[in-house]
Amino acid sequence: MASDPKPSGTMLWGGRFTGGLDPLMVKYNESIYFDRVLYKQDILGSIAFARANAKAGIITQDEFDQIHAGLLKVQAEWEADAFQIVPGVDEDIHTANERRLGEIIGKNVAGKLHTGRSRNEQVVCDMRMWLRDELRKIEEHLAAFLRVIAARAEQEIDLVMPGYTHLQRAQPIRWSHWSLSHGFAFASDLERLRETIRRVNRNPLGCGALAGNPFGIDREMMARELGFEGQLWNSMAGVSDRDFVSETLQWGAMFMQHVSRWAEDLIVYSTAEFGFVRLADAYSTGSSLMPQKKNPDSLELLRGKSGRAFGHMAGLMMTQKGLPSTYNKDLQESVEPMLDHVKTVSDSIQIANGVLATLQTNPDRMRAALDPFMLATDVADYLVRKGVPFRETHHISGRCVAKSEETGIPMNELSFQQLKEIDDRFEEDIAEAFNYETSVERRCSKGGTSKASVLEQIKVLRAML
Amino acid sequence: MASDPKPSGTMLWGGRFTGGLDPLMVKYNESIYFDRVLYKQDILGSIAFARANAKAGIITQDEFDQIHAGLLKVQAEWEADAFQIVPGVDEDIHTANERRLGEIIGKNVAGKLHTGRSRNEQVVCDMRMWLRDELRKIEEHLAAFLRVIAARAEQEIDLVMPGYTHLQRAQPIRWSHWSLSHGFAFASDLERLRETIRRVNRNPLGCGALAGNPFGIDREMMARELGFEGQLWNSMAGVSDRDFVSETLQWGAMFMQHVSRWAEDLIVYSTAEFGFVRLADAYSTGSSLMPQKKNPDSLELLRGKSGRAFGHMAGLMMTQKGLPSTYNKDLQESVEPMLDHVKTVSDSIQIANGVLATLQTNPDRMRAALDPFMLATDVADYLVRKGVPFRETHHISGRCVAKSEETGIPMNELSFQQLKEIDDRFEEDIAEAFNYETSVERRCSKGGTSKASVLEQIKVLRAML
Amino acid sequence: MASDPKPSGTMLWGGRFTGGLDPLMVKYNESIYFDRVLYKQDILGSIAFARANAKAGIITQDEFDQIHAGLLKVQAEWEADAFQIVPGVDEDIHTANERRLGEIIGKNVAGKLHTGRSRNEQVVCDMRMWLRDELRKIEEHLAAFLRVIAARAEQEIDLVMPGYTHLQRAQPIRWSHWSLSHGFAFASDLERLRETIRRVNRNPLGCGALAGNPFGIDREMMARELGFEGQLWNSMAGVSDRDFVSETLQWGAMFMQHVSRWAEDLIVYSTAEFGFVRLADAYSTGSSLMPQKKNPDSLELLRGKSGRAFGHMAGLMMTQKGLPSTYNKDLQESVEPMLDHVKTVSDSIQIANGVLATLQTNPDRMRAALDPFMLATDVADYLVRKGVPFRETHHISGRCVAKSEETGIPMNELSFQQLKEIDDRFEEDIAEAFNYETSVERRCSKGGTSKASVLEQIKVLRAML
Amino acid sequence: MASDPKPSGTMLWGGRFTGGLDPLMVKYNESIYFDRVLYKQDILGSIAFARANAKAGIITQDEFDQIHAGLLKVQAEWEADAFQIVPGVDEDIHTANERRLGEIIGKNVAGKLHTGRSRNEQVVCDMRMWLRDELRKIEEHLAAFLRVIAARAEQEIDLVMPGYTHLQRAQPIRWSHWSLSHGFAFASDLERLRETIRRVNRNPLGCGALAGNPFGIDREMMARELGFEGQLWNSMAGVSDRDFVSETLQWGAMFMQHVSRWAEDLIVYSTAEFGFVRLADAYSTGSSLMPQKKNPDSLELLRGKSGRAFGHMAGLMMTQKGLPSTYNKDLQESVEPMLDHVKTVSDSIQIANGVLATLQTNPDRMRAALDPFMLATDVADYLVRKGVPFRETHHISGRCVAKSEETGIPMNELSFQQLKEIDDRFEEDIAEAFNYETSVERRCSKGGTSKASVLEQIKVLRAML
Repeated sequence: MASDPKPSGTMLWGGRFTGGLDPLMVKYNESIYFDRVLYKQDILGSIAFARANAKAGIITQDEFDQIHAGLLKVQAEWEADAFQIVPGVDEDIHTANERRLGEIIGKNVAGKLHTGRSRNEQVVCDMRMWLRDELRKIEEHLAAFLRVIAARAEQEIDLVMPGYTHLQRAQPIRWSHWSLSHGFAFASDLERLRETIRRVNRNPLGCGALAGNPFGIDREMMARELGFEGQLWNSMAGVSDRDFVSETLQWGAMFMQHVSRWAEDLIVYSTAEFGFVRLADAYSTGSSLMPQKKNPDSLELLRGKSGRAFGHMAGLMMTQKGLPSTYNKDLQESVEPMLDHVKTVSDSIQIANGVLATLQTNPDRMRAALDPFMLATDVADYLVRKGVPFRETHHISGRCVAKSEETGIPMNELSFQQLKEIDDRFEEDIAEAFNYETSVERRCSKGGTSKASVLEQIKVLRAML
Repeated sequence: MASDPKPSGTMLWGGRFTGGLDPLMVKYNESIYFDRVLYKQDILGSIAFARANAKAGIITQDEFDQIHAGLLKVQAEWEADAFQIVPGVDEDIHTANERRLGEIIGKNVAGKLHTGRSRNEQVVCDMRMWLRDELRKIEEHLAAFLRVIAARAEQEIDLVMPGYTHLQRAQPIRWSHWSLSHGFAFASDLERLRETIRRVNRNPLGCGALAGNPFGIDREMMARELGFEGQLWNSMAGVSDRDFVSETLQWGAMFMQHVSRWAEDLIVYSTAEFGFVRLADAYSTGSSLMPQKKNPDSLELLRGKSGRAFGHMAGLMMTQKGLPSTYNKDLQESVEPMLDHVKTVSDSIQIANGVLATLQTNPDRMRAALDPFMLATDVADYLVRKGVPFRETHHISGRCVAKSEETGIPMNELSFQQLKEIDDRFEEDIAEAFNYETSVERRCSKGGTSKASVLEQIKVLRAML
Repeated sequence: MASDPKPSGTMLWGGRFTGGLDPLMVKYNESIYFDRVLYKQDILGSIAFARANAKAGIITQDEFDQIHAGLLKVQAEWEADAFQIVPGVDEDIHTANERRLGEIIGKNVAGKLHTGRSRNEQVVCDMRMWLRDELRKIEEHLAAFLRVIAARAEQEIDLVMPGYTHLQRAQPIRWSHWSLSHGFAFASDLERLRETIRRVNRNPLGCGALAGNPFGIDREMMARELGFEGQLWNSMAGVSDRDFVSETLQWGAMFMQHVSRWAEDLIVYSTAEFGFVRLADAYSTGSSLMPQKKNPDSLELLRGKSGRAFGHMAGLMMTQKGLPSTYNKDLQESVEPMLDHVKTVSDSIQIANGVLATLQTNPDRMRAALDPFMLATDVADYLVRKGVPFRETHHISGRCVAKSEETGIPMNELSFQQLKEIDDRFEEDIAEAFNYETSVERRCSKGGTSKASVLEQIKVLRAML
Repeated sequence: MASDPKPSGTMLWGGRFTGGLDPLMVKYNESIYFDRVLYKQDILGSIAFARANAKAGIITQDEFDQIHAGLLKVQAEWEADAFQIVPGVDEDIHTANERRLGEIIGKNVAGKLHTGRSRNEQVVCDMRMWLRDELRKIEEHLAAFLRVIAARAEQEIDLVMPGYTHLQRAQPIRWSHWSLSHGFAFASDLERLRETIRRVNRNPLGCGALAGNPFGIDREMMARELGFEGQLWNSMAGVSDRDFVSETLQWGAMFMQHVSRWAEDLIVYSTAEFGFVRLADAYSTGSSLMPQKKNPDSLELLRGKSGRAFGHMAGLMMTQKGLPSTYNKDLQESVEPMLDHVKTVSDSIQIANGVLATLQTNPDRMRAALDPFMLATDVADYLVRKGVPFRETHHISGRCVAKSEETGIPMNELSFQQLKEIDDRFEEDIAEAFNYETSVERRCSKGGTSKASVLEQIKVLRAML
């Protein structure tokens, strides 16, 4: 025999509270204050389930009609912000809606709503529907952002600026080429997002608590009504699978990393020292102490929130690690990260769009930052075209750099004589190598920074939308 | 020249909104809806700063008195839940309090409040004070939990149960020994927490925006008034250091891992198959579909929330990675994880305490799960005492196990003859090895599972509180 | 002027070493000891690049032939384990192969190999080819594992065991149903893997250092030769994009989470207390101290390595966060996690396959663990079929459970009279509800645990391979 | 009855291999190829254990002498690189050493070595000793780095540069002040490291497999011999606690974050656009394609490896989450992250030290980057000293900024008349506000950027070493 199980709520060993109820436990357990956002999905799912139960003969058509009408009234209350949550009773949105339905149509019929349905499948049905809808909105925001990227790239194609590697000036590039380098990362995000949505949008209704539905319910009919693109094929998996959330969070964490890299570039480019771009006032803030400051707060928040997005994902993966099969209450912890993640990502895309759409470029500063050393590769390429092996041309060009540093003469102003002394294969046409536009236009293979290549990229990007 | 900077809010490239203001950016930027919890710390910090400015002669005593009285009124409004946040204006708690102060005492004097102080130092001052106070409450909750562990360990010291390694039955142990194995992990958490609090509790006031205070303010006086235990010694570090949050989150993530392992054990022990413990109803829930179920929801939430706690930490570390010196807006992302982490950890300790304090043990099931094979080591030890090398005794004991499996006779019921056949160094006193209490009592070195060792552990644990 | 740049290696401020070279820096920087595994991809990429340069007229056909023949010799040396790495010179595999090629065919021609190609594009070309090939092997391992799952599910379809939620006994299920619940998670992994491979398998060659290739190289020809399925469309993105690694690591981290949950179930099921399965000796180990122990080490390693896999992913995402555009040396940190991740995942699938293929089930223990309370839902469902509202049936069934607990009579042995007293709508046919097989067979909707539903699942699963 | 347990290695369901042994499982399980680095600690621990067993009378003095001498021979073999690992037999360092000892002194006595000791406690004893020793080396490296920071700060105290917030120019600061801002973060790391070492350095020997030692072994004597500072007080915790690794990894992950922020600053400061510092050649590399490039590879690797360090920590925490009590094989996954983490951190500190010690500053570029707008706060402060409320001075100073922007006249060259027009409280002495040195010297409160405050910081920092 166990030690006496009766006084189960009393504290046998001293401790925090006395009496059978722990009010903190009630709060620790309840989810109504965050899962209420799922009210509509919960109602739609219940209608579909009741309709299928009617078809299966488990409830009558009349009962279904009452349930249907009652649920629509509950929905109307939510939409009118008139729904009254009963604290301590409505522990989650599912309980709340059912409780209210009972008040409206009577407990006798309302009590048939859940016939053969478990909380487990209901929770996950609501989550999947909500997430699908939200991800489709995000899909639109992302496409809108990509359209701005493409539009700016097209219109500002003539701006030439330094391209950097290791944050050191490397070779001249088009501003549009830079912008598209991020654009293609975001376009891959769009591709992945669409794949993810398809996996989110599958039907768990009809899984029961774990073993399946015992009343021969028509899962395909429910899936059609709720807009699902397919079934979850195993009832045990169906109730405990939170991969649709994890995958979304992985998606968002990677998307926000792309945002963080894009923001980092723009933060650097908007320093006084670089000065290539200037944020619109709407996306900057001043300083409480330093009147001259204009800070790129929007970009910093975007960069910083990549951490938050990663944290959601890391946290949920930790929560799921090593869990036993089927539903465990741990999985309640999947809802809040989903909600906050979707908000973070959705807001961030829109802010990024606004930042980019209002960003001012400074072509003069871009041009002023071009530096003759950035043409050193072109000097080497020039010699390659004369038949000198590349590794050798690399060293010759390096000697031109050194000569320029020694003499203080910009590399493109070294005399032809000085160049000849370095290597006598230089000819008069070397002057052509010392031109930023020429340099840019020479990179005309697919994916390069020449005008034609960049225009092709814009076309490819638009085709991905 | 830059492209015309004037129409900075207009969307040059098409996009989400038109006009100079982006209402989403206002929301993306504002923090009042979460940092309002810092209202009191913000007011105390402002009073201390103003007092120090008065001492430095930057404001008059009369001005200080007005500020002081005004701030106390603002505090009273918060405490009476009467403070009216002005949406779109009060972007954070600091702005809100200053705006209200100006309304109460006039802008002329209120405008002197921040003389020489930046938002940067103010934010972090509020956060450090709040966190210090909350961590001290957590320290108390943790000590309370440890006292319950010690009390149960002392009173239930006679319960013997299987000890597991690899979740396979290994050797008999005391239930109290199991409980203390977690207790010492939690006691280390307490030790680490105290070290962390000392680092949290240091004064940033007087750091300015980054370069320090230009009015010779007395930082030691402010530190004393606000209860800080030391200064932050470099003003640039002072405004951008969020290690006090990261360290807290690392602490909490590890603490919650300990909780997750403790909860895992209890979840396993409360299965029908193990049956060693039974949760109080206050910490269990039923099933919406299966009337017979009693689920250990509290333990599952505790285990699951270890993910949330880890996510806070992982997210904030991601946010801080690679940030440039001093304040960047990214750091605003440190507030919400701090708030939610503290709540998660604090609630979880209290729930864990409640679970343990009301948990029912089932000594009969514990005893029934003891299995003669768990004495195999004792058989080997018996032979060691007869001088047989340990590696050999291990094999001999293994042969006893095999004999028992072959014959279906429990190992402790093998006849003396059968044992002799395995090894003739067995003598009649081998019978003594086949006793669970004896086995437990033999582990009497420090840290072992004998009664004396366990009592010593309880003493050590209590000394750590 | 800068402080004198000449003695650049000397330690101006005291410190760790003197002299211009820091041997630790050489080691910190070099990657040859891990990237040598890419030797073959490096050679194939170089051949393709040289061939395209020959076509573009940058090198002659004869030069290409020499390079081609030379590279094949280098490859042969690697394959014969005869390649001699020159420490401190061969800092990475690309340098090593080029150095050796120069020794074989002379520096004059070898020096033309890299014409117009950068290390940046070369590194990533090698990585993508290697990863594509390895992921295709993993795809095969995963399909093989799924085939074992399907085969066992088919053959052992008659085994009935308890299904658990919250690790509490819930409803009877088929063992095959349990197995397939994991199977569908793994099948989703397979689907995602195939999507990932398509994104990995894209061509970076022709991107140059960042701005593109200046010699009009034919990127499509190279892509065809190397088996790539598409181009990377922007040269700046092409050299710095490590999403193909991140996405793989996200994939693997999620896959290993599925493994961790599968392993957790089997570890629990192989305890003495559950006893449903028994691992083959090949996948268990004994104890150094306890002769009777048989530990599920393989499953524990599988579960534990989910942490390692997550760590790879988390680490690489941290590395990439906030990086500026294009190549930064930070990205070298993408190689080792990729290598170790692929090994971890590949080994783990194969071990999991071996564990499952040799696992012994214990049908008697499964059946013995079925418990009449698990039929409580069926009792409720019985009444639903009599027209009682579900919420009411739930309570009635709960009273049957309570009666059984009170009286100590198993629920399925309560007399008809006792049941009638609880609710007079019980009729004689209630006896049929008290049957585990019937219970299982009633869950015959799609995805349920009935034989037909499980057989359909097997069919669906196989169609996904 | 279970399905026939005999042919345990055969593949009942088809699959990867046939026959009773899975060679991949052997590799998946073995740890010798990484835990061999613990050879010395393993031997020292065995000697201490044998000595304590001799004292307890479990082995004779002569047996101890043989074991002792034999183990020293084994150690000598390792040190001479002469130890031959037997593949497939020596699965870990403990097995390897014991096997070799048996060959040297005979199995009879060698077989007594482990009397009463389990692999579980031995593993963790070796790890703790090794880690303690390595962390003490890291402690020295870190102190050395801090000494360089302090020395440079002292010698270059006169360099003035822009201080940034949001990467925008904010206020003038001393270069030394910047350096110390990172120095204090590293000094906190040193403080935390010392706390961590104390928790690492505790004795697990005498814990047995889980229940304690049955032969009355003297744990304090072993602790003294092995240099431990205290006992692990509960044997179950003692064998399964990997907090000492987790805590080290948390420590290192935070330390590497500090490194990442320090490196980020220096990468930005070494761009062409900023130009404040120049890395020594020893810590830079060139480009394979662009002859003019000099890339800060060392700093980028330092920044990038912060990801690796975080990954170790995140991975190990994932591994431990939700594990049941005591030893589980999952914990083997704690060794490799520990080894790689220690190497990563140790190398990184030394590289950082080398980078800093050889870094060239460019005072001219620093000074050239100072910008009159950075004195806007000083203009406001000037008016504060005239009694104008701070919030008002902030706006007046803002108007000076605007006037300067409008007129194109640098703010410090605005005529006295122009300033008077903005606010007539300006007097002739405003000229003094337009001086960078004066600005810097005014920040003379504790922690500020004045010379005296910086010198005090250096003193405080040195006192922390």
